[in-house]
Amino acid sequence: MDSEDESPFGYDAYRRTCASHTVLEMLASKWVYLVVCALRKGRLRNGELARKLEGITPKMLTQTLRVLERDGLVRREIFPVIPPRVEYELTELGQNLAGLLNQIRSWSEQHAPDIKEARARATGENEGDWAA
Amino acid sequence: MDSEDESPFGYDAYRRTCASHTVLEMLASKWVYLVVCALRKGRLRNGELARKLEGITPKMLTQTLRVLERDGLVRREIFPVIPPRVEYELTELGQNLAGLLNQIRSWSEQHAPDIKEARARATGENEGDWAA
Repeated sequence: MDSEDESPFGYDAYRRTCASHTVLEMLASKWVYLVVCALRKGRLRNGELARKLEGITPKMLTQTLRVLERDGLVRREIFPVIPPRVEYELTELGQNLAGLLNQIRSWSEQHAPDIKEARARATGENEGDWAA
Repeated sequence: MDSEDESPFGYDAYRRTCASHTVLEMLASKWVYLVVCALRKGRLRNGELARKLEGITPKMLTQTLRVLERDGLVRREIFPVIPPRVEYELTELGQNLAGLLNQIRSWSEQHAPDIKEARARATGENEGDWAA
């Protein structure tokens, strides 16, 4: 470990047993990215999130929201109406993360053409060795 | 989709069929994060990467490097010595991404205490419903 890589916080994400490694693991999910990005401009209901995140199953959405709640990034509010209304919003910590994850989302959109091109090149060179 | 969320590049990571969504999918891996972060200060050999990334299996390291190569983020160089020496380095596109991913790694280290605390709280409140 070179000194430049040492965390000023005493945590080291390269170490599998470090708590920060498990944070990185939690963040390594496209649904975590997208739920956090979708919530960054304000609270949403379950159905609104489901519509925004094309292709997410109800089970996966619930699971993602539970993980984000457990980790203190999302807060759930239940309104005692009939039928009950449930809304989700980012906590302060979640807001803090949202800016970063949104940059990753932006990067993905901005560089999708470069990566498509690289994939096409790799497929050509490897005669179908790589799945696109 | 509200206008603020519209990508200026015509790509939309919220759409499952969009190329940028598959980029987000590729990035949603702790090993992709860590390999890209580890390479950001210069080229490394396979064994150097394996030592830096605690807990990565040889198979997972190879698989991660192949994906990054396929997507144009990492370049592999083979030196014709005996035994052959193989080195990996970030391409320009990979360097461009590395800054962002390193911020995520830093965030994980900086906020690991907050997230540990939230997890402990959730475990307490839910009487063991959540795995820490």
